[in-house]
Amino acid sequence: MTILYELDLLGTLVFTISGTLSAANKKLDLFGAYFTGFITAIGGGTLRDVILGNFPVGWISDINYLIVISTGVALTFLFKRYIMTLKRTLFLFDTIGIGVFTIIGIEKSLSMGIHPFLSIIMGLFSAVMGGVIRDTLCNDIPLIFRKEIYATACLVGGVLFITLNFLGVEPSLNQFITIACIIIIRIICIRFKVSLPVLKY
Amino acid sequence: MTILYELDLLGTLVFTISGTLSAANKKLDLFGAYFTGFITAIGGGTLRDVILGNFPVGWISDINYLIVISTGVALTFLFKRYIMTLKRTLFLFDTIGIGVFTIIGIEKSLSMGIHPFLSIIMGLFSAVMGGVIRDTLCNDIPLIFRKEIYATACLVGGVLFITLNFLGVEPSLNQFITIACIIIIRIICIRFKVSLPVLKY
Amino acid sequence: MTILYELDLLGTLVFTISGTLSAANKKLDLFGAYFTGFITAIGGGTLRDVILGNFPVGWISDINYLIVISTGVALTFLFKRYIMTLKRTLFLFDTIGIGVFTIIGIEKSLSMGIHPFLSIIMGLFSAVMGGVIRDTLCNDIPLIFRKEIYATACLVGGVLFITLNFLGVEPSLNQFITIACIIIIRIICIRFKVSLPVLKY
Repeated sequence: MTILYELDLLGTLVFTISGTLSAANKKLDLFGAYFTGFITAIGGGTLRDVILGNFPVGWISDINYLIVISTGVALTFLFKRYIMTLKRTLFLFDTIGIGVFTIIGIEKSLSMGIHPFLSIIMGLFSAVMGGVIRDTLCNDIPLIFRKEIYATACLVGGVLFITLNFLGVEPSLNQFITIACIIIIRIICIRFKVSLPVLKY
Repeated sequence: MTILYELDLLGTLVFTISGTLSAANKKLDLFGAYFTGFITAIGGGTLRDVILGNFPVGWISDINYLIVISTGVALTFLFKRYIMTLKRTLFLFDTIGIGVFTIIGIEKSLSMGIHPFLSIIMGLFSAVMGGVIRDTLCNDIPLIFRKEIYATACLVGGVLFITLNFLGVEPSLNQFITIACIIIIRIICIRFKVSLPVLKY
Repeated sequence: MTILYELDLLGTLVFTISGTLSAANKKLDLFGAYFTGFITAIGGGTLRDVILGNFPVGWISDINYLIVISTGVALTFLFKRYIMTLKRTLFLFDTIGIGVFTIIGIEKSLSMGIHPFLSIIMGLFSAVMGGVIRDTLCNDIPLIFRKEIYATACLVGGVLFITLNFLGVEPSLNQFITIACIIIIRIICIRFKVSLPVLKY
């Protein structure tokens, strides 16, 4: 679990940066940007822990999350121009973050005896709800509802993880395969502009 | 409680359909529609369980809710044109759903020793918060704040339920009377265009 | 703790009035106004209790909060014109409310063994999240993200409170100093139009 913990902190960092950048788009002040970065980073995990009844929620009992988030906001403020040029790196880290959050959500749920299908949903919530809350606070319709196969990559990754887990694949190998799968799906979807059908009247 | 459980699943189905339809209005993709339907269906009950401290929350420990929600989304996608013509049926089912959610919220709260007035508020939250979250995610001012005596019907039904409960009326009869009362209030309000006063400057 | 309890009810009253007034700006009906006032008043404390795992949350087990909130909504509806002229009084009470909520959040967190820095964040959440939820429901970008040193005053007050607490200052004196400090910071910021830097591209 220690590699997953470090990846969790990495995911938290990247989510903080994405939240802080989107606050900058809305011309929020320093506090608003910090707050948005914070919520983006911890929103998904908080909701997951609340629904599962894991109290106190993760970040409130581990100061490392606050340190990572504060570092992320400071980095974004200091190096915003440079960070903006790192689109590919950010995209890669963001996808790793999504993968890690999905896996952590699933593993926590399974360990509490939650049904595998519902565990996948908890994995998805962990990964995407931070962004949903960020977009709602910034008064946008959540991005994941409109663009990209973002959430679908989590779902496919989640199904794969549950299946391999069921087949007895060793956890850390399973984690690696799942994250790789999520990265590949996102890259393919962006490269070939795959998108989901829209429900029209 | 078994009839209430079945009505709860029916309410979940109808709320899913209403959430999915409102996602379609916003041209969300399949995932966005599923997600919105899901949140609309489970939002109120989740908030109720979280405030009361009932963990893990209802739908996470009973796979039937996920099955009903997935069915609701699929039905909406497949038969959207037909469903749109069923306005009266949808309205009736929606009102039954509201009534059932109100009653479940009140009964759960009372059984935990919550004050009757606060139990009515928990009943109301169970019934309306799914819709509030749906509207907030879709970037609208929540519908219940602006139109119809929707929430007021829940409140009146809640007061009636608590009163009859206090008077010792048998629970399943009480449930039937309360739901009937909520349906009648909504129909009267729509028929005669009754609405609440607006606070103006 | 009894003075803090009474100040908590005062804070709840003022937050209810501010929520109800902002609902009036949006032409919400009586229910919408009540609901918005309610959420503004209890939102921050609810989120604090949920994150910390304090169940059932505060207001659900103490009917006094509901009484205060109902009174606040009624007062706003009856005397809205008069209340609008009390800008300075409202501002003062609002700032006292923020200070009290910050202190209660910090004290509850510290008593549960939460890290001091994270306790300050919980104090901040208690104070500002009601307003954030209010603005999100009313479809605005939360006010604290854009204007005034509102949240910063809480943070500075929180750091002061933790420091004095660490130095062994008697709690009720510490509470008094912290609230005074928060009031002074807000007045200075408004008088001299101090604001935080905005993150620009």
